[in-house]
Amino acid sequence: MQTKEVMADLVRFREERDWDKFHTLINLARALNIEASEVEKIFQWKTSDDELCEQDRQDLKLEVADVLTYAYYMCDRLNVDPNDIIEEKFSKNKKRHWDFEEQK
Amino acid sequence: MQTKEVMADLVRFREERDWDKFHTLINLARALNIEASEVEKIFQWKTSDDELCEQDRQDLKLEVADVLTYAYYMCDRLNVDPNDIIEEKFSKNKKRHWDFEEQK
Amino acid sequence: MQTKEVMADLVRFREERDWDKFHTLINLARALNIEASEVEKIFQWKTSDDELCEQDRQDLKLEVADVLTYAYYMCDRLNVDPNDIIEEKFSKNKKRHWDFEEQK
Amino acid sequence: MQTKEVMADLVRFREERDWDKFHTLINLARALNIEASEVEKIFQWKTSDDELCEQDRQDLKLEVADVLTYAYYMCDRLNVDPNDIIEEKFSKNKKRHWDFEEQK
Repeated sequence: MQTKEVMADLVRFREERDWDKFHTLINLARALNIEASEVEKIFQWKTSDDELCEQDRQDLKLEVADVLTYAYYMCDRLNVDPNDIIEEKFSKNKKRHWDFEEQK
Repeated sequence: MQTKEVMADLVRFREERDWDKFHTLINLARALNIEASEVEKIFQWKTSDDELCEQDRQDLKLEVADVLTYAYYMCDRLNVDPNDIIEEKFSKNKKRHWDFEEQK
Repeated sequence: MQTKEVMADLVRFREERDWDKFHTLINLARALNIEASEVEKIFQWKTSDDELCEQDRQDLKLEVADVLTYAYYMCDRLNVDPNDIIEEKFSKNKKRHWDFEEQK
Repeated sequence: MQTKEVMADLVRFREERDWDKFHTLINLARALNIEASEVEKIFQWKTSDDELCEQDRQDLKLEVADVLTYAYYMCDRLNVDPNDIIEEKFSKNKKRHWDFEEQK
């Protein structure tokens, strides 16, 4: 499925529920951060991927989906395409002398 | 640009730098959460979107791009397509009797 | 109650359950971050403190308590006193020419 | 040093700078979560405590101090003593049949 279609589905879902007023960037940023923490929660007290059971992997997919959902909603508010901004950031990263600690 | 192409670019970038060994799900989940916090940091001490200046909006795009990047890397490790898992989660959400507090 | 006594209680609690092996700094840091997100979750979709009901305030106390608990456990592992490190950081902050955006 | 004295120092510091208006619970919760992420950032791409160098441990102390500072500021706003709420939560934990996954 195309990113544009998925974003259109998400926006329609929001409009049907009249949640537009809650979807400010400041609120979406908080929601994004909370969901990213729920992704990490699956790893709580674990030390490596070997400790993930099949259920953990299923849960992980759905938690990552929540993060992506809020990131897409932020893109909608910022009038940008998710893939375009990844490529834009990516081009910057390719050019810079790499600071290993900062991002891999 | 298509999601598949963007993911292929990201994977090639990683392989060229030999970062494959760092990109375990447990490490990517931590990186994702740290980047989501950097998105929120742009809102620190602000109370509404009205306080965002043009530079904040530019910064926001690049920070959201970082979150998307790690989410895509996690999808690569989980062998799933980002748009597919959003739609999968979205279908669940459409069916359920909605708990307003949980997700908007 | 004194901080030293509280820390002693927490350490005793951990020893009785044989959780010592899980309480590495890397694991405690993840737990700390997850709990800090649960504090923020109470504010999800809210825009000001006025929207907090009495139950939210009760929940908030217990979530802040979880953050403090993991911060104390980290202090135990680092062999430092919580109040000492606050004062140490605080002295640095008092001396520096203040960057408003960085911390208030 | 006593918790009450440290809290009094922090409140005096805030008043001298007229930051009182920024220190709402909703803003402090965001700051707390951002700082907790900075604690975790020290562990980025690491897999165990063995990879921490002496400088990392110094940095860790100061980042944990920032988390404690905002937790204390939240306690001030909630009119509670940090040690009292830890003990209150702790008593609940001692009584309950333990769900291992939830908190250690």
